[in-house]
Amino acid sequence: MRVTVLGAGYMGSAMAKVAASRGHDVTLWGTWLDDAMLDPVARGGVHPKLGLPLSELRVLRADALAEALEGAELVVHGVSSEGAVPVMTKARAHLPDVPIVSVTKGFLELTGTKKMDRVDVAVAEAVGRPVRWVHASGPAKAKEIARGVLTWMCFAGADAEVCRGALGGDHVFVSTTDDLAGAMICSAMKNAYATGLGIWDGLLGADCHNARAACFQQSIVEMERLVALGGGRRETAFGPAGVGDLHVTAAAGRNRAFGEGVGKGKPAKQVAAEMAAAGELTEGYPAIATARRWADERGAGALPLLDALHAIVWGGAEPRATLAALRLG
Amino acid sequence: MRVTVLGAGYMGSAMAKVAASRGHDVTLWGTWLDDAMLDPVARGGVHPKLGLPLSELRVLRADALAEALEGAELVVHGVSSEGAVPVMTKARAHLPDVPIVSVTKGFLELTGTKKMDRVDVAVAEAVGRPVRWVHASGPAKAKEIARGVLTWMCFAGADAEVCRGALGGDHVFVSTTDDLAGAMICSAMKNAYATGLGIWDGLLGADCHNARAACFQQSIVEMERLVALGGGRRETAFGPAGVGDLHVTAAAGRNRAFGEGVGKGKPAKQVAAEMAAAGELTEGYPAIATARRWADERGAGALPLLDALHAIVWGGAEPRATLAALRLG
Repeated sequence: MRVTVLGAGYMGSAMAKVAASRGHDVTLWGTWLDDAMLDPVARGGVHPKLGLPLSELRVLRADALAEALEGAELVVHGVSSEGAVPVMTKARAHLPDVPIVSVTKGFLELTGTKKMDRVDVAVAEAVGRPVRWVHASGPAKAKEIARGVLTWMCFAGADAEVCRGALGGDHVFVSTTDDLAGAMICSAMKNAYATGLGIWDGLLGADCHNARAACFQQSIVEMERLVALGGGRRETAFGPAGVGDLHVTAAAGRNRAFGEGVGKGKPAKQVAAEMAAAGELTEGYPAIATARRWADERGAGALPLLDALHAIVWGGAEPRATLAALRLG
Repeated sequence: MRVTVLGAGYMGSAMAKVAASRGHDVTLWGTWLDDAMLDPVARGGVHPKLGLPLSELRVLRADALAEALEGAELVVHGVSSEGAVPVMTKARAHLPDVPIVSVTKGFLELTGTKKMDRVDVAVAEAVGRPVRWVHASGPAKAKEIARGVLTWMCFAGADAEVCRGALGGDHVFVSTTDDLAGAMICSAMKNAYATGLGIWDGLLGADCHNARAACFQQSIVEMERLVALGGGRRETAFGPAGVGDLHVTAAAGRNRAFGEGVGKGKPAKQVAAEMAAAGELTEGYPAIATARRWADERGAGALPLLDALHAIVWGGAEPRATLAALRLG
C-alpha cells in the first residue's frame, strides 16, 4: 500500500516507521517547519526528536506536497493542530479520496462560524468537501511507539477498520470505533485535564495520590459529559481515547510539569514562558482555554474541575483555595 | 452518633479519625494483632503506621469487643480480609443491626461451598444472618485521608446514603451506589491488576508509559467483564471503585514495587519473600491467584491480562515473552 505521512514531527515520523514496518511504501512529507527534523535525516543521521534513523522512508520537503500525495492510498495526518488547516488547504488540490488517519488533537476555530470545533470539521471546511477522517486516539507516546513498546491505539471513524488493517499489528494494538466525535473530544480534552493532576504534585508534594486519583476520576466524569454534549457516545470516555490517553498524559511529560509549576505557586504565564524558553510546549495551558470555550459554545454549564483549572491557570486564582473548594461528582 | 471502628491498622484508624472529625463519639477497637499499634497510642504517642495521635478516640483492646460494640449506631469494619471472618465470628453475639461501612478488599473462601466469594458474603455466613454491608470503595490511601488530602470514596450498598451522611464532608468526598457487588469485585481485583503495571517498569525501565496505559485500560476492560459476571453493573468499573482505585494503587506502593521486581526477572516468590522480610505485604501476589480462582469458579473464560499475570507470577513464565504475546481488548 502506498502511504503518505504529512508532518515529520514526533508522531508523524513514528507512524511512518510503523507503516514501513508493515511493508508499505511510505513517503514522509515535512512541513515548512520540519526542515530541522529532516536535515539530519537527509545526511543519513537520526531524527532529532525520535532519536532513530528513517532510512526506510522516502522523505520529501515542504515544496513537494503534490508529489508526496500522488498515488497515496492512505494518508496519515501528523501535523500539529495549528498546522492542520494551513497544510490541508495547500493539500486540497492534490488530496486523493482515501482514508486519512490523524493523530492531531485539539479544537480549532472554524473560519465560517468563528466557533471552536473538532480538527476534522475544521479540515473539511478548509478542504471544501467531506474528508474520510479516522482519528487515531489512545495512549501512544511517539518515541515509545517507534521503540517498539506495546501500545494501544483506538482508531475512530467510518474507515477505521481498513486503517487498522493497514497499520495495526505486532506491538501496535488497534481497536476501532465509529464514534469519531467522542474520540476527538476525549483527545482534545485530555491535555487540559492532565494539567490538573500535575497541580496537586506541586501543591502537596509527592504524597497526594488520593487527590490525583480523585481528579483523574473527575476528569473522566467531565469528559463523559462533554462527549455526550458533542454528539459522541459516553462509553468512548471509558476506553483508550479517554481513560487510556489521560493515563499516559498525566503520568509524565510537559502538561504535568506545567501543572506542577503552577501548583508550586508560580503564575501560569511565567511557567509556560520558562518552559517555552527551554524549548518545551505546554499544550495543557491553551487547551484549558479552548476546551472551556468549546464547552461554553455548546451550553455545557458547570464542569467543576475544568472550571477550577481555568480559574487557576487563566484567572490567576490561588490553587490551594480553588482546589479546596472543588466539588467532585 | 456512636461509631465503633473494628481494626486499628492503617485504614481503620484513618476512618476513626474521619468519624471523630465529623463530631461522632468514636471507639477504636484493636484486634489481637493490633497491640503494637495501640501501645504507643495508650502512652499518648502517635499511631505507628499513620504517624498521628489518636487522642480524640476511645481506644479498646481485643478483649473488649462486646464493650466496643455496645450501643454502636454505625460500625466501621477496618479489619484485613484475613481477619474479617475470625473477628466477625467473635462479634456476632454483640453486633447491632446497624450499617457496617467496610474498607476491606479481597475475596475469601466460604466455609460452606468452599468457593471464593466477596468479603460481605463470607461475613454474612460467619455472622449467620444478613449484614447491612456498605463497601467503602475508591482511591483512598489511609495516611492521606488522615492528613486531610482530598479523597473520593464511593460507598456501595443499600445503606450507602446514611453512611455518606455520617462520614462524608470536608476533604472526604463520598459518592454512593447501590451496586455492592460491582464495587466489591473492583476492589478485590485492583491489587492484582496494579501488579501488572509495575512489571512493565521493571521490564522496560521508566519509559514504557504506552504499555502501562494499555494495561491500565485492559485492566478496566477485564474488571468490567468480571463485574458483570459477578452480578454487578458494568459502569461501576468506570467509576471510583474501578478506574479511581486502580489509579491510586498503580501509582505507588507495594503492588507496583512487587511487579517491578518481577519485571526485572526475579521469581515472584523471591520478590515477595524479600519484601516480607522488610515488613512489606504484597497483596497483589495472592490477589492474582484468588482473582483467577474466583473467575474460574464462575466460568469467566479468558482474561488476557489476568492470565498473563498469573502465568508470570504463579507459573514462572518469562515476563517479556508472556507480555509480548498478550492480546489486548
